[in-house]
Amino acid sequence: MNTSEKKKLSIISFSGDFDKLVAAFTLASGSAAVNYEVNIFFTFWGLNAIKKKKGRSFTGKGALARIFGFLMGGVNNVPLSRLNFLGASPGLMTFLMRKRNVATLKELIEASIALNVNLYACEMSMHILGMTKDDFIPEIKSVIGVANFLQYSEGGDRIFI
Amino acid sequence: MNTSEKKKLSIISFSGDFDKLVAAFTLASGSAAVNYEVNIFFTFWGLNAIKKKKGRSFTGKGALARIFGFLMGGVNNVPLSRLNFLGASPGLMTFLMRKRNVATLKELIEASIALNVNLYACEMSMHILGMTKDDFIPEIKSVIGVANFLQYSEGGDRIFI
Amino acid sequence: MNTSEKKKLSIISFSGDFDKLVAAFTLASGSAAVNYEVNIFFTFWGLNAIKKKKGRSFTGKGALARIFGFLMGGVNNVPLSRLNFLGASPGLMTFLMRKRNVATLKELIEASIALNVNLYACEMSMHILGMTKDDFIPEIKSVIGVANFLQYSEGGDRIFI
Repeated sequence: MNTSEKKKLSIISFSGDFDKLVAAFTLASGSAAVNYEVNIFFTFWGLNAIKKKKGRSFTGKGALARIFGFLMGGVNNVPLSRLNFLGASPGLMTFLMRKRNVATLKELIEASIALNVNLYACEMSMHILGMTKDDFIPEIKSVIGVANFLQYSEGGDRIFI
Repeated sequence: MNTSEKKKLSIISFSGDFDKLVAAFTLASGSAAVNYEVNIFFTFWGLNAIKKKKGRSFTGKGALARIFGFLMGGVNNVPLSRLNFLGASPGLMTFLMRKRNVATLKELIEASIALNVNLYACEMSMHILGMTKDDFIPEIKSVIGVANFLQYSEGGDRIFI
Repeated sequence: MNTSEKKKLSIISFSGDFDKLVAAFTLASGSAAVNYEVNIFFTFWGLNAIKKKKGRSFTGKGALARIFGFLMGGVNNVPLSRLNFLGASPGLMTFLMRKRNVATLKELIEASIALNVNLYACEMSMHILGMTKDDFIPEIKSVIGVANFLQYSEGGDRIFI
């Protein structure tokens, strides 16, 4: 809003759905490309997007957390927000994206990182799900709570996806 | 945005999903705790969060509205936004939240009320669903439409959850 | 934010769910009615809201895109975001809206257009899904990407629905 400062956009990435993650990282990388400061705050299912790629070998503490761990299979196992029927799977969408020469989710995440989008993990969600910073890709800047998120996103737009 | 005024955050709580309500009230109470003025505008399924606790004895007028009433079982009956399989139910999540010493949804709602978060119910949704102000907890400040919501949320961020 | 300019609200319409489209167009037409400049950026499933009414005869190029075409049946075939059980279908909701004398989705879209809400289609989603501008109602102002969306929505709120 203040023209003397850099424009800012902050995304709360709550959903772990494939299509919503594509939307979030398209918006993030596209905004960073036109010189916005961009923050993404991953919370709940959104944490899937930043999990290390090691399949479903979830390391959370506690048997119950492991059930959520199964649901949190990482970015290679995220579903579509709509019914996965008729073959309209994330795999098919990725196939179409490649065929159309559109960046895939993996490429959008890499582009966002290359463009210095700030990635934060939600402390409370991690606590509930029994996750630690070690479960995430090293590009995660830090683990923060609501107060810090509000502070970092102050003066810009906040979007919940 | 204006530093001389109180910072403001307004949430449109559309989804009645357990996990999204946890996100909405975590954001609301966390913002109010750092001195934001916070408004929540409950609409459609989000109205579930503010229904009186009386099970499913929905009192809307008309047989058809009663079908929606069944779907609107109040905050003790809200589902997860993801498939409720493998025991990953709101009950399990509440159990984990308690075990981890994280505030539960009920506690987050109470905290939001204690921190003077303003709660509004959407006039149009109530009209469609055949609900009246009596169906809601007494802490609801008033029943408003889009124009009033825009006015109350003016000058701050608006987030749709 | 700037009181000398027109207030601005921009909606990213991502979901093609009936109830979320009702929410988006209620917010859009309600804001336009109180003199906001309103932009809607239709992306992914949201593109359903602006498809020409010709049933499911999807004309995208490529057999795979046609599968998504089946899922993108246009605004007369959009589902509820919640389970369509117990008769709680978009048809029932439309019936209730009519009975309660609330504007239906079709009427909300017409009102938004009459109130000069700017409608934009997302270039990337169309590309993935093999759609062209001809697939949409003529009121679509233009087909744009993220950079243009950011530019048009600058200085106002952005809401993801």
